[in-house]
Amino acid sequence: MAREELTFPPAAAARLQPHLHRPPSPSAAAASSSSPRPFVTLTFATSLDSALSLAPGVRTRLSGLASKSMTHFLRSQHAAILVGVSTVVADDPGLNCRLAGASAQPRPVIIDPHARWTARASSKVLQLAREGQGLAPFVLTGVADIPADQQTLIQRDGGKYIQVPSALDDNGRRRFQWRDVFQALRAEGLQSIMVEGGGQVINSLLSPPNQALVDSVIVTLAPTWLGRGSVVVSPDRVRDAEGKPAPVARLCGVSWHPLGEDVVLCGSLEPQPAEDSTTGP
Amino acid sequence: MAREELTFPPAAAARLQPHLHRPPSPSAAAASSSSPRPFVTLTFATSLDSALSLAPGVRTRLSGLASKSMTHFLRSQHAAILVGVSTVVADDPGLNCRLAGASAQPRPVIIDPHARWTARASSKVLQLAREGQGLAPFVLTGVADIPADQQTLIQRDGGKYIQVPSALDDNGRRRFQWRDVFQALRAEGLQSIMVEGGGQVINSLLSPPNQALVDSVIVTLAPTWLGRGSVVVSPDRVRDAEGKPAPVARLCGVSWHPLGEDVVLCGSLEPQPAEDSTTGP
Repeated sequence: MAREELTFPPAAAARLQPHLHRPPSPSAAAASSSSPRPFVTLTFATSLDSALSLAPGVRTRLSGLASKSMTHFLRSQHAAILVGVSTVVADDPGLNCRLAGASAQPRPVIIDPHARWTARASSKVLQLAREGQGLAPFVLTGVADIPADQQTLIQRDGGKYIQVPSALDDNGRRRFQWRDVFQALRAEGLQSIMVEGGGQVINSLLSPPNQALVDSVIVTLAPTWLGRGSVVVSPDRVRDAEGKPAPVARLCGVSWHPLGEDVVLCGSLEPQPAEDSTTGP
Repeated sequence: MAREELTFPPAAAARLQPHLHRPPSPSAAAASSSSPRPFVTLTFATSLDSALSLAPGVRTRLSGLASKSMTHFLRSQHAAILVGVSTVVADDPGLNCRLAGASAQPRPVIIDPHARWTARASSKVLQLAREGQGLAPFVLTGVADIPADQQTLIQRDGGKYIQVPSALDDNGRRRFQWRDVFQALRAEGLQSIMVEGGGQVINSLLSPPNQALVDSVIVTLAPTWLGRGSVVVSPDRVRDAEGKPAPVARLCGVSWHPLGEDVVLCGSLEPQPAEDSTTGP
């Protein structure tokens, strides 16, 4: 099947490089091979009213072609791309890199505590893996008894299920700790993770207990408003010691890069006072 | 009272000029003096999650000094600055221009259908007017019997109450039509209006029935997330002919200008299919 190939101008790529993982030199790599977690880039595109999509499961074209090319450039710069299961169930995404001349494909990682995703031979991510245009996913789950046919289907193309410790939250939903997620991925040799979405995953990583796990943030903004009721990036409310609402997160070392009609914001999360919490995906 | 003076670099000002009102030549002015409405610039600053403030009535410092200077430069370029009454009640704003060397002060305009604002001698906007550092406000209201002492207080410094037609909405709240608002201001000789907020005013003007009344949009974005429950810019949901959610508004002719840690977005609202509606402030 012929697939569209994308290009991203070297000058634009150069502007993003300072915000990306630099593979360590061989000697440093040996020293850091026991590093407990990979380099994590959080990246997503929103409208001006911080919406990822008009409604859950509704794919919404927000940003332009240049921004799309940037996404695929970023994928080429990471060992893995991570998404929540809702995104996979809703969009059946390819999760591959279509940048012309990309030397390697990133590993798709699906956060699926309840094993909600049912892989099919026709699932786009598996189809692309079979065609050699992508990799089969690593599915992180808290469910022990994954049906054998599901396991076989994913393993056939080089993917697998990975068990991650989980606990039930107040609503009876199974949750991971992000620390465990990244540790599991590091144990698989994945040194850089591009977290792409969806809303729940992003909001969780922007929340104070998890901010220290994120090394770089790259946000694309499109000059549109999707309106109330959309799926938005906006982390849960944070309050200060007096109980007053306080800002949740702020970027430092920021740079803004106009890209077509959109703008790309790069930065790092400002360190926040540490908190105890069990928040996770 | 000594007041801080702000400066805005000429180069930055030049980038904004294409998005601002150009006073017509004298002959053109004569021809257009009956123009039914003024040039309207919608301008505001939000966080990345589109928040104006952490909560109603909580003044939230979002953007940097450069963005503040830009606001005062923009005020210097408009005949009037318009805010909703909630902003005035919550913030007691000065609504003047503190740009060094500004030749004239803009006229503060307060949208106050129910006459909720109680002017006091100590109200900052009146104080500044008395000091010759600003103008007293025009208060647009739907209430006929404004107490005489209120009228006197505002008139003493050159302001006044202006009656605008209003109607009760479904919730029993008195509302103007934006068309009537801008017509009333044009009738006062105000040829350019900078609309600054708050949330209700902005969301209303971004909604399809009112978009055609807005000539220019200038949004400042700060690299922070305020979190759920903040006061946000996000217009009411719009649906297409099939009842599916659709984007509410989009800017065209956009340009992005990094300014300190923030970015400034300039553009115009893309024309939308006309709709009948009685939405107003």
